[in-house]
Amino acid sequence: MATTFYPPQRTLMGPGPSDVSPRVLAALGRPTIGHLDPEFVTLMDEIKGLLQMAFQTDNQLTIPISAPGSAGMEACFVNLLAPGDKAIVCQNGVFGGRMKENVERCGATAIMVEDDWGTPVSVDKVSAAFAAHPDAKVLAFVHAETSTGVESDAAALCKIAADNNALSIMDAVTSLGGIELKVDEWGADAVYSGSQKCLSCVPGISPVTFSPKAVEAIQNRQHKVQSWFLDMQLVMGYWGGDSKRAYHHTAPVNAMYALHESLLMLEEEGLDLAFERHMFHHEALVKGLEAMGLNMLVDQSCRLPQLNLVQIPEGIEDAAVRSALLSQYDLEIGAGLGAFVGKAWRIGLMGQACYQENVLLCLSALDNVLAAQGANHERGAAVAAAMAHYDTVQQ
Amino acid sequence: MATTFYPPQRTLMGPGPSDVSPRVLAALGRPTIGHLDPEFVTLMDEIKGLLQMAFQTDNQLTIPISAPGSAGMEACFVNLLAPGDKAIVCQNGVFGGRMKENVERCGATAIMVEDDWGTPVSVDKVSAAFAAHPDAKVLAFVHAETSTGVESDAAALCKIAADNNALSIMDAVTSLGGIELKVDEWGADAVYSGSQKCLSCVPGISPVTFSPKAVEAIQNRQHKVQSWFLDMQLVMGYWGGDSKRAYHHTAPVNAMYALHESLLMLEEEGLDLAFERHMFHHEALVKGLEAMGLNMLVDQSCRLPQLNLVQIPEGIEDAAVRSALLSQYDLEIGAGLGAFVGKAWRIGLMGQACYQENVLLCLSALDNVLAAQGANHERGAAVAAAMAHYDTVQQ
Repeated sequence: MATTFYPPQRTLMGPGPSDVSPRVLAALGRPTIGHLDPEFVTLMDEIKGLLQMAFQTDNQLTIPISAPGSAGMEACFVNLLAPGDKAIVCQNGVFGGRMKENVERCGATAIMVEDDWGTPVSVDKVSAAFAAHPDAKVLAFVHAETSTGVESDAAALCKIAADNNALSIMDAVTSLGGIELKVDEWGADAVYSGSQKCLSCVPGISPVTFSPKAVEAIQNRQHKVQSWFLDMQLVMGYWGGDSKRAYHHTAPVNAMYALHESLLMLEEEGLDLAFERHMFHHEALVKGLEAMGLNMLVDQSCRLPQLNLVQIPEGIEDAAVRSALLSQYDLEIGAGLGAFVGKAWRIGLMGQACYQENVLLCLSALDNVLAAQGANHERGAAVAAAMAHYDTVQQ
Repeated sequence: MATTFYPPQRTLMGPGPSDVSPRVLAALGRPTIGHLDPEFVTLMDEIKGLLQMAFQTDNQLTIPISAPGSAGMEACFVNLLAPGDKAIVCQNGVFGGRMKENVERCGATAIMVEDDWGTPVSVDKVSAAFAAHPDAKVLAFVHAETSTGVESDAAALCKIAADNNALSIMDAVTSLGGIELKVDEWGADAVYSGSQKCLSCVPGISPVTFSPKAVEAIQNRQHKVQSWFLDMQLVMGYWGGDSKRAYHHTAPVNAMYALHESLLMLEEEGLDLAFERHMFHHEALVKGLEAMGLNMLVDQSCRLPQLNLVQIPEGIEDAAVRSALLSQYDLEIGAGLGAFVGKAWRIGLMGQACYQENVLLCLSALDNVLAAQGANHERGAAVAAAMAHYDTVQQ
């Protein structure tokens, strides 16, 4: 017979979920109130404002979808595409492939622009795709590829879309709160993210934002959105700006408490300092990993600070290392995904997981576990290199 | 500037969310672990087993969808229907109408069987609909209509579907854990529920179960499921029976702790005792309401114990009463929905909200608030009638 579940206390340095602050867990566990309670409606308004701050946008339609990031992705596609439409989809990792699936399930055609895993989306290829398909209605790309740790030039990509009268759909699941993300300045039209990455909230919620141009396209649709649950015209009735909230679905009330608290923490720190913190600890981690003889898989020019792809050395068993880190150190790092299965680890430094103690734990644990697996790096060099970084750089 | 949100301590006697036990809130707030952590995979297996207990089924595909009940509804329709299909949809309240929307957004045709709000689905009309449309692939109906407080004859409806080689889709959002729900014995093929009703978990999760016949239909689909997020073939890869779990989406880890704990509480009590408890306190509530001169809107033969539709008396202001209950007693009851807007209140006795203290609070508060609104019932009669019930009936 099952009994109460007491989870182990992990340190979460994979590709998400990331470490959740006790403040956020405390918020999550507060008493449930109704999803139409006036107090909850006030909370909803605050969440919208805080999400606008995080996305750096004035978009009125900036809300959390009551489901994980993959539902946020789907919300963008099903609301902006209709059968017969054409979308240019950039793929340089797992999530571009998922975008293609979404486009095709909308009855639309995906024009693929493919780049190697571990490299950014080629802006030139996207321009060429628009030249070949000037009727494309949407350009979709991933800002920060969670499967490869690569940042693409979102500003340039949004501009190409706008110059070609297309709407841009941007996956910001891993970027929101971790690196610069300027929705309005870049002119992004539909952006989705996840609660469990650099916001360090519990998983299950997908913040999205739609530009006025995107909202207009949604309001002028001739073809009903194929998903009732994700139909933004209906969702807007519940999350909309006026005081009358129409019941659409029952919001995940407690998850909203948690999202609110995690956004408050981001606001208190300030976006710029949060971005600097991610970069600062990323540099310490990289110095440590390289001092251990490990190779970063992504070129420094497009490397994400919050998600570090590390090549698994010759002769080292992927699963055994991750399993030892988990069982001996309660430390989770991520396996490779797609083309990188068995070839890379993904070490996350997202949100509340991005602090010195995590960097040092991760380097120490890897030092020991890899040595036990027969690696012959200089013991202690990794932590020493990271400490040197912490000692010399003024934070 | 926003600050930490401290929700008021409400008593939740609306149509859901219902009162959440401190045990479940404590589970919810435990430290987050990864969605592929071996400990989490064990928890997932336990949840599947507990949901089988609650649904009274051996269906292997019995899992929680990572989104609210309306997404669970959509999961059933998009996986079982394809463009050109025909579905018979029973409507006797709001949620039958939502089913129609789902059918049509799948590119299928909805054959509507309509019954008055406040009455059950007519089994004869459904038989007649099958006679007129023997090629219907699906029969969809609501077991316990949350908008009207009515129970329909799910066993008979599932049988008609089976006799006509159709798959049954049953909305059990409000029934699961509150009244008898025998998925296997009745032969239901696809059933969805919600976490925030009689399970008394936090809102945001939708338990679903699919019969082997439904799974076969899904596996033999020629047309891709239009939703990537809700494609059960993909979801099965993550929640499936084998030890290898394929990443699909990031599960709402903490919500799963809570769901697990709420199902444990149901298992500890036992289904039969839980159903008896709902009926017992429902009878006390009804005796109290009637002693106050209020009328139940639904005939006793099909009345749901967990959701009580009460006619708003002539001359009484709907919103003012609910607002006074909330502000003076921290008590939430539900407004009418659809045809019952302004005409009925919905008083929930769901899960952990179904105890004597809630019945007495509700009756006392209504007694006072209605009197303040000018009603001239005998003061104190309601509580006296409920107490008489509690005194005379052996629990």
